[in-house]
Amino acid sequence: MRVLGVDPGLTRCGLGVVEGGIGKPLRMIAVGVVRTPVTDDPAERLLSLQTEIDEWMERHEPESVAVERVFAKANIKGIMGTAQASAIPMLAAARRGLPLALHTPSEVKASVTGNGRADKAQVTAMVTRILRLQTAPKPADAADALAIAICQVWRGGAQDRIAAAVARQQTALQAARR
Amino acid sequence: MRVLGVDPGLTRCGLGVVEGGIGKPLRMIAVGVVRTPVTDDPAERLLSLQTEIDEWMERHEPESVAVERVFAKANIKGIMGTAQASAIPMLAAARRGLPLALHTPSEVKASVTGNGRADKAQVTAMVTRILRLQTAPKPADAADALAIAICQVWRGGAQDRIAAAVARQQTALQAARR
Repeated sequence: MRVLGVDPGLTRCGLGVVEGGIGKPLRMIAVGVVRTPVTDDPAERLLSLQTEIDEWMERHEPESVAVERVFAKANIKGIMGTAQASAIPMLAAARRGLPLALHTPSEVKASVTGNGRADKAQVTAMVTRILRLQTAPKPADAADALAIAICQVWRGGAQDRIAAAVARQQTALQAARR
Repeated sequence: MRVLGVDPGLTRCGLGVVEGGIGKPLRMIAVGVVRTPVTDDPAERLLSLQTEIDEWMERHEPESVAVERVFAKANIKGIMGTAQASAIPMLAAARRGLPLALHTPSEVKASVTGNGRADKAQVTAMVTRILRLQTAPKPADAADALAIAICQVWRGGAQDRIAAAVARQQTALQAARR
């Protein structure tokens, strides 16, 4: 399974593509950060981000897209741009008929570190270890995007395994009833 | 000047097209509401909204787009969908190179009623009067979209008039200096 993870933002949007599955080693395909200038019109910034994400979709052909779920917290002004930016990968997935998952920051942290309240350094360290990278991905947004993709491979994979196990059990039960 | 006004939302997105200018009567070209089912995937809802807005752009060929600026207030959960929905008309304008304006709810209310704290009934009543409509536009999102478009015609027009007056004065000053 190949997943595009997105840490949405207008000033910095982290993108990471990870390939792998349950029980298989994960591999980093690509990582990067899209920056759009604060001086640009907000609509222009959204369009630049869309152009970049579309290019990533074409180049890396992910089978699913995972986006960090945006919450309104401290920075109310920034959060609106982040929410608008998160619409771009959602649209990109929907337009191509790809499955889309939204993961909360604590789901992502728990997936890669085992602790839903892990700090950025811990997340970056674990992403580097899991993907067996020579150097830690920078900036934090890039590492976060990879963490989101890893979370999706593992959670998505686990969900698929559970669904498969349930299906097997139901088939076995039906066979036993006959 | 023909303006598409958008009251962004995922559950209900108001759209209104108004034509006119300063000192000229305003005319309603179209009004409507796009609804996307709450049961749909959020990415699918964004895509449906984009399809509808693209159709409106092609059918009514607005020269500019005005969108209500989204603020984080009471309903935090809803506001994220609204912020994501607002990205759609912003992208539509940027992709076509059309000017885009964001107006706050109080700017819109002040434009059409003279009172930045006017209630929905007042806004609807004034929109009906300004556009000389036989019946009040419904629901409130539709009336709001028309109010946003009216605000843009008047504010945009006024800004153009001020810019033109400044340009005239500078030309006159330069002529006087010679």
